[in-house]
Amino acid sequence: MTFLSIKNPKLVLDETICRKNLAMMAEKAKKHQLKLVPHFKTHQSLKVGEWCREYGVKEITVSSLKMAQYFAKQHWENIHIAFPFNPLQATELNQLAISQSVSVQLVNEEITNILAEIIDQKIGFFIEIDAGYGRTGVEVSDFGLIEKIMRAASKNNNMIFKGFYIHAGHSYHADLNGIKHIHEQTKAALKMLKDKYCSEFPNLLTRSGDTPCCSIMDDFEGIDEIGPGNFVFYDLCQAKIGSCTKVNIAVALAVPVVDIQWEKKEVLIHGGGVHLAKDVLSNADGSKNFGEVVLFKGQHWQLQEHTSYIKSISQEHGIIKASDQFIREVKIGDIIGILPIHSCMTADCMGAYISTTGEVIDHLEGQLKN
Amino acid sequence: MTFLSIKNPKLVLDETICRKNLAMMAEKAKKHQLKLVPHFKTHQSLKVGEWCREYGVKEITVSSLKMAQYFAKQHWENIHIAFPFNPLQATELNQLAISQSVSVQLVNEEITNILAEIIDQKIGFFIEIDAGYGRTGVEVSDFGLIEKIMRAASKNNNMIFKGFYIHAGHSYHADLNGIKHIHEQTKAALKMLKDKYCSEFPNLLTRSGDTPCCSIMDDFEGIDEIGPGNFVFYDLCQAKIGSCTKVNIAVALAVPVVDIQWEKKEVLIHGGGVHLAKDVLSNADGSKNFGEVVLFKGQHWQLQEHTSYIKSISQEHGIIKASDQFIREVKIGDIIGILPIHSCMTADCMGAYISTTGEVIDHLEGQLKN
Repeated sequence: MTFLSIKNPKLVLDETICRKNLAMMAEKAKKHQLKLVPHFKTHQSLKVGEWCREYGVKEITVSSLKMAQYFAKQHWENIHIAFPFNPLQATELNQLAISQSVSVQLVNEEITNILAEIIDQKIGFFIEIDAGYGRTGVEVSDFGLIEKIMRAASKNNNMIFKGFYIHAGHSYHADLNGIKHIHEQTKAALKMLKDKYCSEFPNLLTRSGDTPCCSIMDDFEGIDEIGPGNFVFYDLCQAKIGSCTKVNIAVALAVPVVDIQWEKKEVLIHGGGVHLAKDVLSNADGSKNFGEVVLFKGQHWQLQEHTSYIKSISQEHGIIKASDQFIREVKIGDIIGILPIHSCMTADCMGAYISTTGEVIDHLEGQLKN
Repeated sequence: MTFLSIKNPKLVLDETICRKNLAMMAEKAKKHQLKLVPHFKTHQSLKVGEWCREYGVKEITVSSLKMAQYFAKQHWENIHIAFPFNPLQATELNQLAISQSVSVQLVNEEITNILAEIIDQKIGFFIEIDAGYGRTGVEVSDFGLIEKIMRAASKNNNMIFKGFYIHAGHSYHADLNGIKHIHEQTKAALKMLKDKYCSEFPNLLTRSGDTPCCSIMDDFEGIDEIGPGNFVFYDLCQAKIGSCTKVNIAVALAVPVVDIQWEKKEVLIHGGGVHLAKDVLSNADGSKNFGEVVLFKGQHWQLQEHTSYIKSISQEHGIIKASDQFIREVKIGDIIGILPIHSCMTADCMGAYISTTGEVIDHLEGQLKN
């Protein structure tokens, strides 16, 4: 018996777990009077988008114009493209904005000038702030640049300033104390900016995006909106840093077992970097971990008491270091599950999901790999 | 002016460079009286398959049944599925074998028994041998297992033993001396097996697969066939270990520049792990390198005298550490090229190519991402 008659790698999405994650974050947002504007780059799925709506989501976040175009079919109150806007796509942005309320993210004067030249539809914009991550955004104390962007945008009445956006992505590599510290930085930065600009822009909004802070923290003073993405599925990286536990992980890659080396306690699966991506964690003993085994029972998967994990990965091969119990039970031809290290990347690799009842669930990147 | 009017990440394939790589490997195979049976998992493209045919290729290698089905349209003399066969797909294999000569790879008795039960079309098989890589295959001295596999297969007259296959994938992580040592191991193992079994199987073939050994070595005694894949595009990993130089790299990811931090000498591109994959090299100073900048000029790209490289990568963002010259010349809105660390993974992420003249080139994984 193979799970759902799966024969080759498929990404299984457990709707029950996913909905619990959505309910939890929606509840938390409500409790703290935050607007939840979830980032859809994790799931990239219209179906999961529908589920989000059931938990009160009205506005969404995406990471590219292409993704905004995909979700525009669902007529959200607003779609925010949370990536420094690509000026080569200004005409397409104009086009999209005819039928869908959109906002963009700005980090420099040059692109603001280009948009101010071209835009003839109402477009909102957030200024992205770097409060310590170092990836992208205007440095939090660079008021000169903030004001240059505002001035450039003010030349075009269609460009509406919405507020400041911080994605504190360094929280993904922090421990609990680190996450607390990062969250304080984010709050302080957004509060300072709000205080400074609220008299000029009384409707100014502040938004913060990372799943670790949104999952773990309980004080959002100075923040109006949150835009986490990963929480919808979570993954082993999030479990490791404490954003969730492994029971909250909503996707598992189903893979066939093709060989077993009983003496070495190794299990070869058809499941590699093109399926899972190559994100990796370190185990306590320093060994690499590219994903962990779960076993399908009935219509769900079960976490294992003793961990079996992918110790090495290539394009299509994964080698599992098996626990004593797993090596005793596993058979060639079994379909087993792998919890991913980074669910956003795994979902993007796979390009579609299969539900635990066998239904295909869409993903922007295309058809179900088969 | 943007290269070919590219506006967002696209994988550019330079046919001229690719054909030079094909011509070089075909010439080398001819010189050493080897049959070249290239691995198509790198390019996964019917168009590149056509080019291969022009250099005398008649049989091909793939890594999954799905890939075999894709290339069966081109009616090759044989398609070898170089992955321990997934027993859940035995019926589909039978189906494919009605119209296309195929061979599979076996590493255990269990799957051989399953195939021997089900197969009713002629199917060739290689026994995969592990001569030191440690990923998959029968240990080279495990004659007991080799003979069990042969005995199990002999129960079904449709299963035709073709020979022994070694993929010495550890050569990808070796230096020149290491590669020489690995190649000697591979040759010795295949020669020993040939000597041992040639009286029983006079047509027995030996095949070896890795690009580093096929590119660098010049003595193939004991080897009848080679099945390299990566050489068709090469990449920075291969350039680093000496399989090629950077001028041989036939694909570059075209990406837009969306922000520049002149003081930090950093350039932000829309190009991340979902485009390039997350394979990484270490620079001489220990820093990470996720890809290197080339500049498009006319219909080709130019290598840079001073290296600019991606120092960090996330789902859609890449941050380039820029050389002094590049930071002086680059502008927001430019389209620049990134040479990949691992071209097979990048091609799989992108799911299609664009030629240097703007033509779309197919990839199994789907439509051109746009």
